[in-house]
Amino acid sequence: MTALRTRRSAERTHAKGGAPIPQLPARRVENPYPPMALLSPDQVEAIHLASLHILENLGMEVMNRRALALFERAGADVDHSAMTVRLDRGLVAEALKTAPAAYTLSSRNPARQMAIGGNVINFTLVAGPPNVHDRERGRRAGNMRDYRELVSLAQHFNCIHMLGNQVCAPIELAANTRHLDTYLANLTLTDKPFHVSAIGRGRALDGINMMAIARGLSLEEVAADPGVGTIISVNSPRRFDEMMLEGLMAMAEYGQSVCITPFTLMGAMSPVTLAGALAQQNAEALCGIVLTQLVRPGCPVMYGAFTSNVDMRSGAPAFGTPENTKANIASGQMARRYNLPYRTTPGSASNAADAQGTYETLMALWGAVLGHGNLVYHAAGWQEGGLTASFEKFIIDVEMVQHIMEFLRPIVVDDGELALDALAGVPTGGHFFGEPHTLERYATAFYQPLLSNWQNYEAWTEAGAMDATQRATGVWKKALADYVQPPMDEGVREELEAYVARRRQEIGADEP
Amino acid sequence: MTALRTRRSAERTHAKGGAPIPQLPARRVENPYPPMALLSPDQVEAIHLASLHILENLGMEVMNRRALALFERAGADVDHSAMTVRLDRGLVAEALKTAPAAYTLSSRNPARQMAIGGNVINFTLVAGPPNVHDRERGRRAGNMRDYRELVSLAQHFNCIHMLGNQVCAPIELAANTRHLDTYLANLTLTDKPFHVSAIGRGRALDGINMMAIARGLSLEEVAADPGVGTIISVNSPRRFDEMMLEGLMAMAEYGQSVCITPFTLMGAMSPVTLAGALAQQNAEALCGIVLTQLVRPGCPVMYGAFTSNVDMRSGAPAFGTPENTKANIASGQMARRYNLPYRTTPGSASNAADAQGTYETLMALWGAVLGHGNLVYHAAGWQEGGLTASFEKFIIDVEMVQHIMEFLRPIVVDDGELALDALAGVPTGGHFFGEPHTLERYATAFYQPLLSNWQNYEAWTEAGAMDATQRATGVWKKALADYVQPPMDEGVREELEAYVARRRQEIGADEP
Repeated sequence: MTALRTRRSAERTHAKGGAPIPQLPARRVENPYPPMALLSPDQVEAIHLASLHILENLGMEVMNRRALALFERAGADVDHSAMTVRLDRGLVAEALKTAPAAYTLSSRNPARQMAIGGNVINFTLVAGPPNVHDRERGRRAGNMRDYRELVSLAQHFNCIHMLGNQVCAPIELAANTRHLDTYLANLTLTDKPFHVSAIGRGRALDGINMMAIARGLSLEEVAADPGVGTIISVNSPRRFDEMMLEGLMAMAEYGQSVCITPFTLMGAMSPVTLAGALAQQNAEALCGIVLTQLVRPGCPVMYGAFTSNVDMRSGAPAFGTPENTKANIASGQMARRYNLPYRTTPGSASNAADAQGTYETLMALWGAVLGHGNLVYHAAGWQEGGLTASFEKFIIDVEMVQHIMEFLRPIVVDDGELALDALAGVPTGGHFFGEPHTLERYATAFYQPLLSNWQNYEAWTEAGAMDATQRATGVWKKALADYVQPPMDEGVREELEAYVARRRQEIGADEP
Repeated sequence: MTALRTRRSAERTHAKGGAPIPQLPARRVENPYPPMALLSPDQVEAIHLASLHILENLGMEVMNRRALALFERAGADVDHSAMTVRLDRGLVAEALKTAPAAYTLSSRNPARQMAIGGNVINFTLVAGPPNVHDRERGRRAGNMRDYRELVSLAQHFNCIHMLGNQVCAPIELAANTRHLDTYLANLTLTDKPFHVSAIGRGRALDGINMMAIARGLSLEEVAADPGVGTIISVNSPRRFDEMMLEGLMAMAEYGQSVCITPFTLMGAMSPVTLAGALAQQNAEALCGIVLTQLVRPGCPVMYGAFTSNVDMRSGAPAFGTPENTKANIASGQMARRYNLPYRTTPGSASNAADAQGTYETLMALWGAVLGHGNLVYHAAGWQEGGLTASFEKFIIDVEMVQHIMEFLRPIVVDDGELALDALAGVPTGGHFFGEPHTLERYATAFYQPLLSNWQNYEAWTEAGAMDATQRATGVWKKALADYVQPPMDEGVREELEAYVARRRQEIGADEP
């Protein structure tokens, strides 16, 4: 099968003319260096204690009767009329004991298994934008054609380890059943793990069921070897919504990966100070993490963080700021305080795939990497503060993620690498181009970019003087042309389609 | 004087209409976090030993009789006919003893004094490009009008601590005297320290003399309190040119700051491997550093590094690559091995002020910062691998440097910052906009960018849908309009002009 796919892929490339886009091979990315510490151990402890103060005294609004009951049974102080819970530090500590430090996520292709935790970094496609943009077709509302193209791009590029939840909202489809269409696209157009929607129990369960079908497993088997994840966004400050709680509990019940992510924009949904925002984030994350363990002890769960700031003149959200970059690192310190895997995000508020989009994203990406993020969510394609999935930005981001991957490869120092013989063979003022040491290594010595242009000015001008954003259009078009759909057993496909058809009928699709 | 300047500046701003461009105040930038270590201590030692092997066995070509004599007197093995020196480890260790770990550079404005060494980071304007570019006037050969504009921009922005040597070559002026014109522009249009040309003894001495005049000091006084620096580029592999050695020795003789910078493009001027390139770089840097101490023990000297790679398909130089980023960090480890201040560089090969120019520069800039660079040379305006000084790229780079400066400000965790009262005052799902805690802090809580646009898509479109590069044009034009020339005593100016006139006559200007 692999040989056939390879040949088919080669033929297709030949048919399209030109070599495939250079890219790094599929591999597990590890950060071999210690995480950066912006907070002292005392500061980590002060934030931890402040968050316990919040949990014990201010409490959380938990807008779900079943969740309130679970907290009450565990010994929390529950106010049913206000729907708030207060958690004491003993309860929190007890629940954290069962949260795993690391786990794996498996998709229908065993080679795609992801490790979550430790020093491993995984990168995901942007999730959730209502809009889509590329240079040729302009800005438009999310739709299924774009959805399919964007997940195909995520399949094509090895550095994207996982899909987020809905790379764009396909608004021409019924809102209450479009998750079935997007899950089916995820499972047939890619063989990578993906995130499901946790807006309600049904959407989560559909995703779990469909992943189980694709892998030929029972729900029990999938619970022991999870394949999907979800992001539980907190309605910060200190509120968990009804539907999100339903999704959280469904995912936990079936042993799938849950990531609790407070959205703490400093100055708006959290204090204007980083320490205050981190304390709030920590309290909110811990509350959700505790709930996963109350539902199912041992449930795989991540500490999610999304602390950035707003523009205080306008209230507009900002990403990739110095404050956001610091928060990405400091939040990793908090996650490790509890020995939990850590989810973080590089973002940008830019309206274009331009220099701003690039420096904001790369600032936050360095924060994510230095902070030892295990899941770098929205790693490719995020534009306009998450309101648009951009094709060109996707390519720029893939290039930056690959830069980081190569940066993280350790330096080797041995006799071959020290090259003293080559140094002796080249005269002063000479060059190394023709040296055997060079010729033996040059083909693989350096990272080969997919977007960067290193021509001189004259050659670049001759070739059209295209900037990186313009060139990115050609790259994603070529990637779509070269994309190879991963094979799927016909019986499995039919079973998935039957599931979707049955569920569509059960739900009773709304008008879009 | 300050009040007058402030008023004049305010009037000018008023005249130009609109508030000044937001920017960070002038300040010393310190990196409070430990440097990143990509090399283990054993690897650092292996590279150190390999470089000693190079110095002891392969030797260096030193194309200058006086330098050869200095090495010989110090006990080096000198081959006068081949003009090569071999330095044993004892000689190197002895010379390194007198090289200072830290020093200061002072300009005519005492407030601009720079600390070189320790955790302090300084950023300089791009140096040396033959060409200039901006979006309105296109690409053109370097000239004095652009020179004046670019150094005025460096004066205007506080994050630029120092000028490099010749932000562009003013080719309409005679080649053998244009250094006098550029030094005069540096000294009258700015009050920041600057780099002189070390192509020969005369250019270096002119810079030192003119800095002394501007500060009202004798050459002896300036030697005790240096005010100019220079970059000694090595003609890698293993060759120091005649003129560079003259410049090096003149600077050292007068106690000014010397930075020895091998230019080790892996695969071309050095081995294709990072360890080999670092060993070569280290040997070359040590050779030049030793010479400064033979000329004048205690001479302020920096360990310079510029290791990047070439495109192995074309031989074209590349910058801001993963390999370059690693080299920027590892080279800092080598500099600290000898307790020397460290010069590094963020670069890009992009032909435009675009996404590529941005990610390449920011990759290398993170390397420079994590590697604890003390002098980040070419920090703003570098384009086309250093062949062009770009006005728009200058603004993008200033924005990125400011992001880094803000990132490096430590997180404060205390009762005020933890904001537990504010957290108690905001209901669940509410917002913090109106909280006293927010109102007291919002004006200064977050970094305010000078280029980033955080409008929503509709407002941004309404305002012309300009990307960051387009907006950068407006920023540098506004900065030039707002630029205030620092005052200079009329007598000092006359003395400088007389010096230039006299030297021009002595040298006998060539045709340009």
